Formats: sequence, C-alpha cells, structure tokens
Amino acid sequence: MMRKYARVSATIADLLRKRSLQFPRLLSSSPILDHPSSSSSASSSMSSSSTHPVSLGTINEKVLKCEYAVRGEIVTLAQRLQEELLAKPGSHPFDEILYCNIGNPQSLGQQPITFFREVLALCDHPAILDRSETQGLFSTDAIKRAWEILDQIPGRATGAYSHSQGIKGLRDTIAAGIEARDGYPADPNDIFLTDGASPAVHIMMQLLLRSEGDGILCPIPQYPLYSASIALNGGTLVPYYLDESAGWGLEISELKKQLEAAKSKGINVRALVVINPGNPTGQVLAEDNQRQIVEFCKQEGLVLLADEVYQENIYVPDKKFHSFKKISRSMGYGNEDITLISFQSVSKGYYGECGKRGGYMEVTGFSPEIREQIYKVASVNLCSNISGQILASLVMSPPKVGDESFESYSAEKDGILSSLARRAKVLEDALNNLEGVECNKTEGAMYLFPRIYLPVKAVKAAEAANTSPDTFYCRRLLNATGIVVVPGSGFGQVPGTWHFRCTILPQEDKVPDIVSRLTEFHKQFMEEFRD
Amino acid sequence: MMRKYARVSATIADLLRKRSLQFPRLLSSSPILDHPSSSSSASSSMSSSSTHPVSLGTINEKVLKCEYAVRGEIVTLAQRLQEELLAKPGSHPFDEILYCNIGNPQSLGQQPITFFREVLALCDHPAILDRSETQGLFSTDAIKRAWEILDQIPGRATGAYSHSQGIKGLRDTIAAGIEARDGYPADPNDIFLTDGASPAVHIMMQLLLRSEGDGILCPIPQYPLYSASIALNGGTLVPYYLDESAGWGLEISELKKQLEAAKSKGINVRALVVINPGNPTGQVLAEDNQRQIVEFCKQEGLVLLADEVYQENIYVPDKKFHSFKKISRSMGYGNEDITLISFQSVSKGYYGECGKRGGYMEVTGFSPEIREQIYKVASVNLCSNISGQILASLVMSPPKVGDESFESYSAEKDGILSSLARRAKVLEDALNNLEGVECNKTEGAMYLFPRIYLPVKAVKAAEAANTSPDTFYCRRLLNATGIVVVPGSGFGQVPGTWHFRCTILPQEDKVPDIVSRLTEFHKQFMEEFRD
Repeated sequence: MMRKYARVSATIADLLRKRSLQFPRLLSSSPILDHPSSSSSASSSMSSSSTHPVSLGTINEKVLKCEYAVRGEIVTLAQRLQEELLAKPGSHPFDEILYCNIGNPQSLGQQPITFFREVLALCDHPAILDRSETQGLFSTDAIKRAWEILDQIPGRATGAYSHSQGIKGLRDTIAAGIEARDGYPADPNDIFLTDGASPAVHIMMQLLLRSEGDGILCPIPQYPLYSASIALNGGTLVPYYLDESAGWGLEISELKKQLEAAKSKGINVRALVVINPGNPTGQVLAEDNQRQIVEFCKQEGLVLLADEVYQENIYVPDKKFHSFKKISRSMGYGNEDITLISFQSVSKGYYGECGKRGGYMEVTGFSPEIREQIYKVASVNLCSNISGQILASLVMSPPKVGDESFESYSAEKDGILSSLARRAKVLEDALNNLEGVECNKTEGAMYLFPRIYLPVKAVKAAEAANTSPDTFYCRRLLNATGIVVVPGSGFGQVPGTWHFRCTILPQEDKVPDIVSRLTEFHKQFMEEFRD
Repeated sequence: MMRKYARVSATIADLLRKRSLQFPRLLSSSPILDHPSSSSSASSSMSSSSTHPVSLGTINEKVLKCEYAVRGEIVTLAQRLQEELLAKPGSHPFDEILYCNIGNPQSLGQQPITFFREVLALCDHPAILDRSETQGLFSTDAIKRAWEILDQIPGRATGAYSHSQGIKGLRDTIAAGIEARDGYPADPNDIFLTDGASPAVHIMMQLLLRSEGDGILCPIPQYPLYSASIALNGGTLVPYYLDESAGWGLEISELKKQLEAAKSKGINVRALVVINPGNPTGQVLAEDNQRQIVEFCKQEGLVLLADEVYQENIYVPDKKFHSFKKISRSMGYGNEDITLISFQSVSKGYYGECGKRGGYMEVTGFSPEIREQIYKVASVNLCSNISGQILASLVMSPPKVGDESFESYSAEKDGILSSLARRAKVLEDALNNLEGVECNKTEGAMYLFPRIYLPVKAVKAAEAANTSPDTFYCRRLLNATGIVVVPGSGFGQVPGTWHFRCTILPQEDKVPDIVSRLTEFHKQFMEEFRD
C-alpha cells in the first residue's frame, strides 16, 4: 500500500515548489501548523472590549503564536463530550471517550511496574522501612533499593530541594545505566534531572535562541513541544521533511537543502532536533543513518538535540535503539567534536509514568562556561521533583537477574511491550484496510500517523467550517465514535496532505471495538463526501 | 536598635537622589543585583576561543543576564568546601556546612508531617490499600484519604498525565480550602497546579512581558526568582523600596513614585509583585496596607502578583495572614475589578516539602480568552507531578478535629511552628548584639535579613578582591564557620547598604553553636578591618 505513492513523495521538494509555498512562511515559528479556527477566534476576541488590564492585544505575542495541538481544540471538545456523557448518559452514540491523542499509557489502563512503585512508596514514607509489616507488603529488593536511595540523599531527606541537577547518587546510577546501555562512559555531572523531558527542551531552546534570526532544524512531522518551545522562545523553526514514502526516513540531502535555504535567508541555524524512535512517525533510525546525522552536525557546527524518550519502545526485530551518544563515540567523536543533548523521560518506555514527571538530559560537548549557564537556568527552578528523580534512576537501573523482583518485573515489562507491538500491528492493518488511508509501520514509539486522502467535497466542507480538512475529519470522528486523535496539522505535514496521530495505547480488549467504530465511521464519512 | 537609624531610612528616596543613582540603570532588568565577580568571569571566558559551536558570545543574552544568588557563587563555594571536608576531614575549621542560604527545612533535619507522607505513599502504591498489613502501618484516615484521592483520579491512575491545570477533584479540595481560609468563594477552574510556585511565576511573566518596554514592580529587597524570571523573559524590573526603618514596610507613596518614574521613561508597567509574608524581609503586611495595595492596583490597572507561599509561617501574635483575594473581596472587588494571582507552594509553611515540587496559582480577574492562553502555556508541559498535586490538596485540607491523625498532626505542626518562632527570636537577638549589625523582627516567612555596617577598610578589601562588600563578608563567614548565607546584593538593597539573608531553619540544638560561631567570626572580622 505504501509503495504505490512512492513516486509522489520522492519529490516532496518539487511538490513544495509547485505549490509555490513561500519559504519565509516555512521559516516562521509555527509555519506548518495551521489552526484557522483558533486564530480567527483569537482575532475576534481581541476586538471585544474589556475592563481587564490584560487583553489578547497586550500579551506577549510569542504566547499567542505558540500552539500545542496534543492538548488543543479536539481535546477540549472531548472533555466537553465527556462531561455531557456524565451528566446525561446516552446523549452521544458512544459510552466513553477514548483518549488516543496523547502518549499517556496509564490513563488507558496500563498498570505501573510494581517494583518501581514499591520503591517510590517506601521513599515517600521511610518511617515504615523498619517495621515488620513492611516485609510482608514489599519485596526485599524494593526495601533494599529504598535504603540505598535514601543513603544517597543527604540526611535521607526526600522532602528537601536537591542539587539543581538532581541528587548526585541518582545521577551516578543513571550514568552507570547509560554506560551499560551504550558501552561508553557517561559522567554523572553531565546529567540534569528534570520534571519530564519537556522542561529540559525548554532550557536548551532558551539557551540557544536569541531572536527570530536563530533557527532550529526540526523534523516535519514533529512533536509539537518543539514548535511550541521555539515559538515561546522567539526563534524560528526550520523544517526538514521526513520522507513518508520511505517509511518516514530522514534524508541527509533534505537536511542540507533546508539548512542552505535557511542560511540564504539569513537564519543562523543553531541545532538539529532528531526524534528517535520517531514521534509521531514511529520510525526507528538505522545505525548508518545516525552516523550520517552525527557527521552532518559536526560538519555544520550544529548542536544535536536527540529526543530519545522512546528508547525502550521498539516493536520490530530488525531495528534496535542506538543512542546518538553511542553512535558518535563509536565514530571516535568525543566532547570536543560534537555537542549533543540526549533527552530521556520516565513517561514513555514500558513504564509510562507520565504523572511522575521524571526525566533527564545528558549534556555533552559544551564548554564549562556554557554548562554553568545551563546550571544557572536549572537552578532558578531549584530542582525537579524527587519522586521523579528516583524513578528516573530506577528506569535506568531496573531489577537484575537474581533480584527477588526480577521475574515479576520482567513479566510485567515484556507483557506491556509485546502487547504494544500487537496493538500497533492490529491498528496499522485496520487503518491500511480503509479506503484512501495509508499507514506506515510503527517500528517504535507509541503512535500511528496514517495519511488520509480526503475527497474534495470533504476539503470544501472543512473550508466552509473554517477549519483544516484533517481537523474536520478528527472532529467528525470524535463526535461519531468518542475516539480522540490529533490532526496532522498539529505536527506539520507536507502541505496538501492530511494525517492524524493515533496512539497504540488502548488496552487490547478495547482494540477490536475501536477498529470497528473507526472503520464504520470512515466508511460513512467517505460515503457522505464522495465526489 | 532599629529605631536609632530611623531618621536615615525615612529618606531613602533622598538618599538615592544624593547618590545620583541613574534611573535607567534602576530600570534595567537586574539593576540592583551586583555580581562583579561573576560578570567579569563571564567576559573573560567569552574571549577564550573554543571549537564548540556554542559560546558565551552566541547564547541568549537574557540567560547571561539572569542571576539567581540563592544558588549562586557562595553556594558553589560551599559545595566545594563540603567535598573537601569529606575527602579530608579536619581540612577546615568546622565539621559541617550549615546551609542557611535557602528555605529548605528538611535538608536541615525538619521531619515531614506523617499524615501527608502516609497518603503520598499509599497513592504511589495503591496495590497495598487492600492488604491487612496496611492497617497496622498506616493511620485509618490516611487510608481513607488515599481512597478519596484515588477516586478523584480518572481510572485511579496516579501515573497518568492529568488535566493541564491539575486533577479536577484535587482542585475542588484546594478551592474548598481557600474558601474555608478566606470566607469567600473560590473556583476550582481558577486553580493551576504547578511544580512548586516557580513555574507559575514564569508562566505569568511569559504572558505579560513583551519586551524591555514592559515592566514589573518588584519589592527591593526581593526574592531573586522575580528578577531572574523577568530577565529570562526580557522585561524590566521596576523596583520599589521597602522601608527598612519601618520594619521593611511597604509605602504606597513609594509605589506611586516608582510607577510614575517608570512611566516617564516609557515603561509600560504591567504588574505589581507583593511577597507576603516577606522574603527576605520577614515582614507581614497589615490588613490596612493590603487594602491600599489592592486599591492602587485597581486604580493603575496593574495585575497583582501575590506571593503568598509563607501564609502558614507567622510567628507574632499581633499579625495574621490575610490573602489578597480575601482583602479584595472584602472591599467589594470581584473578578471584573481586579486581576489577581495568588501563588502557593508545598515547599514552605510547617510542611516544608520542597522536594515534592507542589504548588498552585489561583488566577482571578482575567478574561476567558486570556485564561485560555494561560491554559495553553501550562499544557505545553502537560501537567505538574501528581504527588505534588496531591500534597497541595493535603496542605489546603489537613486532618480535622475527630480524624484519627488530628492530634499527632497538630502536635507535629505546632511543634515545628513554635520552634521556628523561637529560632527566629534567638537568631534575631544574636544578630542585634553584634557590632554594626541591625536586624528587623522576623514576623513571618523563614528568614532574617540583617543590615551590616561594614568598615571602610572591608569595603576596600572587597573592591580589591573584585567582589561586592556583602559577598566579601559572606565568603569570609563561610570560610571561617561553614555557615552559608546569601549576600544582600542577590536580593537588592538600597545602594551603599549591605545585608545578608540567613534562614531560621537550623534545628534548635544547633542554634547556640551557630550563634557562637557567627559572633566570634564577626568580632574577628570587625577587628581585622577596623578603620
């Protein structure tokens, strides 16, 4: 199914030119994120007079420009429908809202890893560690690990602000975990623990972006955290297009072309964002491709911002996760050769602990004085939350063979990952069975990003409704089925193409129902708008 | 001791004029925060050539400008000394570093409130809620509360991202707590839960500051989060001076004068920051003074940013905490009359749970479209950590009379607060006994902010060492005693006056030793530099 469109996508660049898309617009801070409805509502409210001292006309324009579709208008509609269902059961043609808009596994019933939660609970209330009842309630290695962690915290004070980079002992554990993963040394002083990966991304954008003249190369489609953070920090998003026809592959020639084009417009490109495994594409980069990317950053003097939060989420036997740090070290490149930031989070993987807001960035290749600046910015918020810090150390150092929890831990982990792989396949097949839909393989991460070929009549109906065609489709899908997905325009897409992002996270017993509701809706939609 | 200098401070404004302090400098983004040593080191490293793609000359200037003294150079020195002590015991004339630089109670031995930690542990590992051993380990009301909280979380998923403002049920609890505190209604939809109060302050600064032409009225001395956040967001700090001779009182005439002066320079003043109880001053505003402030904001169309994180920390019988919301509502002002943000945190009070990073802002008086913008910015980071959210609900709704935990909870709470009051008094008296030191009463919060009259010789020695006189004093204090305090220049002070901030947080058994070390050091210092 994918192959038949290959000839089109091979010439995305030509396509763009033919559509006479103006480059400056592409370079503007959120160029490919079309939200006609929200922007028009903004301008209309701006005219409403108010006695309030603050109005849309007087707030920071960067805030206005920022968009974050993952929690955008479709989700707001979903929340309203949920309230209506609660207030009046039967008021909609579905019983529940299925949030497939966001990588939030536990909201859809995924259970936390027991060992991790045992350790967190014990660190939250260390007073019970010495009690005999605790032996019966918690596993031995969880108790042991809690003691080890408490001993790493000055005064065993889990309620104290830590070092602004995070507790040193936990950073030691994380560095050891990175070393074990990569086979190359990691320095605990390079680790900055953060409340999830998002604040880490903001810190880097804040550091690098001085004005609209500074650009960040971002994949299109991208995770909208990047476009939002670039907009909030007043920089310019320089898009590079992933090749949908080649399984969302990243072509170095495209990077080069977009970098040159940006330079010729006077944009100072500072960094390259790579999301691997890909969000929303689900693509996992090949090792050789990663080497080319490292070489490109080195040659061009770009900071490499590597979003590696899905490093544990790989579902195909022929792909493996390699960190960009490992790749660059294997090429003989050290701190002096390449500036590389790797982002990791406790929210993804098999753990999916989104609510804990844990994560870290490993910062390598900056001079000491820039490191000091990063530390200073981190210190303004004092530190990230300690439970999140502890959890970040746990995911980088889970139970090992011989530990009491190892078997149950492994069973939980494998159960989640193999189920995710099955769900990805079922949903991918279901989507590919729909008329006018083609969906690439989810090799990794947590998403499907199908392309939908919408009938002209649907595109016109969207225009009449003052919304983008993909938003129009997603809104109709939600109203008919309760399934919440995110329009492709929130992530960016080749103009004139339409997609949506759907997670693979609903529990397996719900998947058949989702497939049938989606299939039925799509058929009716295509019937209604058939040209 | 305070009274004898009253005649001087009454004319701070004249003093400023006499010192021919130029106003534009006062308006620059971190005007009164002098860090000669750090800025000179910055410029020297800027010249060091490097192969790195990022240098001090090419990063965001706003990051360079930002200063955060609470974790600044003195703390960096302290960390080094601590490592040296560990590596080589006896290498310094003290056995331990006493961190009096930061309001971090549990790092100095304060114990967490048992009930709060019980609930957090149970919510982290709900699997044990049904086990019989749990009854023996946890109090009945903690188990009951954990169930109530879990039932407020969709799917009982404490590991899921919540609504971007925080879990609705917890916001209901917080709103009820605010109502009980103030006697006026609070709306759960006005609550934004955040990872401590700092991110909430950043969101407001990000919203209000468009350029250097936008100003925020901040008290001097201030908590450096404000100067740092204003610098990072590219605005201008418009200082208003608290009157040290009147117990750090806030004079409306000073607000008016500084507002007019800022306006005449073309600065668009957007908001007024008030910290009550005061950080670093320890002053608690009188009710009448608060009414004047509300009236001033209403008249001038200013957003009132009320830092109320020390609302539980009041140590004198003649002062009481009144929220600005209560004050404004008692004046008959509602949402249409005044735009008011109240910041609260789980890090302070008697709980002191800094490491949990919980907090909220109550946002009132914005139009719906501005609220939407605030929601959007909050949503880019998805949500704050759930443990912090739960804890924020607990501090606003602690055990009540009749609950199993009520007695032990009350004993813990009263024990901490009465001990803090005693420590404040002992340290205040000790400081006032020192030659050339005068220290106002700590009515609330967690700090002393004594003024030190340094001999001319000491000021010259500081100049020769390329540092500010107060930093010079604090550095000497640290090297001699292991006591870490923050130079007044980090908070701002009337030029030519010198202070330091010292917390009242060391445990009571350590206070006598601190007093004697401090006293001895100060005597020797004054001897050494006597003119």
